[in-house]
Amino acid sequence: MKHSPEQIKEIEYVLRKISGIIKQKGREILSEFPITPPQFVALQWLNEEGDMTIGELSNKMYLAFSTTTDLVDRMEKNGLVERIRDQKDRRVVRIHLLNKGKEIINEVLETRRAYLAHILESMSQEEVNQMAISLQQLFKKMNE
Amino acid sequence: MKHSPEQIKEIEYVLRKISGIIKQKGREILSEFPITPPQFVALQWLNEEGDMTIGELSNKMYLAFSTTTDLVDRMEKNGLVERIRDQKDRRVVRIHLLNKGKEIINEVLETRRAYLAHILESMSQEEVNQMAISLQQLFKKMNE
Repeated sequence: MKHSPEQIKEIEYVLRKISGIIKQKGREILSEFPITPPQFVALQWLNEEGDMTIGELSNKMYLAFSTTTDLVDRMEKNGLVERIRDQKDRRVVRIHLLNKGKEIINEVLETRRAYLAHILESMSQEEVNQMAISLQQLFKKMNE
Repeated sequence: MKHSPEQIKEIEYVLRKISGIIKQKGREILSEFPITPPQFVALQWLNEEGDMTIGELSNKMYLAFSTTTDLVDRMEKNGLVERIRDQKDRRVVRIHLLNKGKEIINEVLETRRAYLAHILESMSQEEVNQMAISLQQLFKKMNE
């Protein structure tokens, strides 16, 4: 169904503001860790989806292949990831998350969760349940 | 109250993913307009809050004063904004949104709303009302 322009306007506004706050809070959190915002995004993908090629990672990140290569070079130099050759097809190289990278990404995510837990503290269980349902719905629709 | 770690984990994940999609969709939309992502953020603040000094704008954008100055210089050159001297205190200079800037920001926002309207099309009125309530609650808590 078609929803009212006023309601769409309100939801676009609130989503834009929430995204802005999350972005800024995310940067503040990262300033306490030895990784940059694009490195966080890359590590997060490797953590969630496992080893992937530079091509796959650049698609996920909407970055040029060359930019992703530079990003991976830097992370490899810092001991966060390593390049691994496919055993069956030696021409294929995948990026693999190392323990140091895994530890950092998990600590960053824990800090983000602690921030969110604090934000939601004063809300009732029912309100948080409803929020989880609405956000899941929105995420699902955005992916369709 | 303290909410379950699983629920907090889920909400952090979904919010992070939704923000990522909004960021990417926002970039796609901007690629059709003659402004950059930071220019969009600046024009959006000037549109919502009216004239402000470079210092005020740099605070809103979490950017260094010098970076904001460069941004405003570029936007002034492109006819999107102008610098106006305060009539009462000539030492104070404020950035003022010009018609060209206002038209562009409104068109960008309309395109974002059209995207969102499309996303929410298959949801019922009740679901969208609930989503609006949950997002407003979250935004309010984040601003406290």
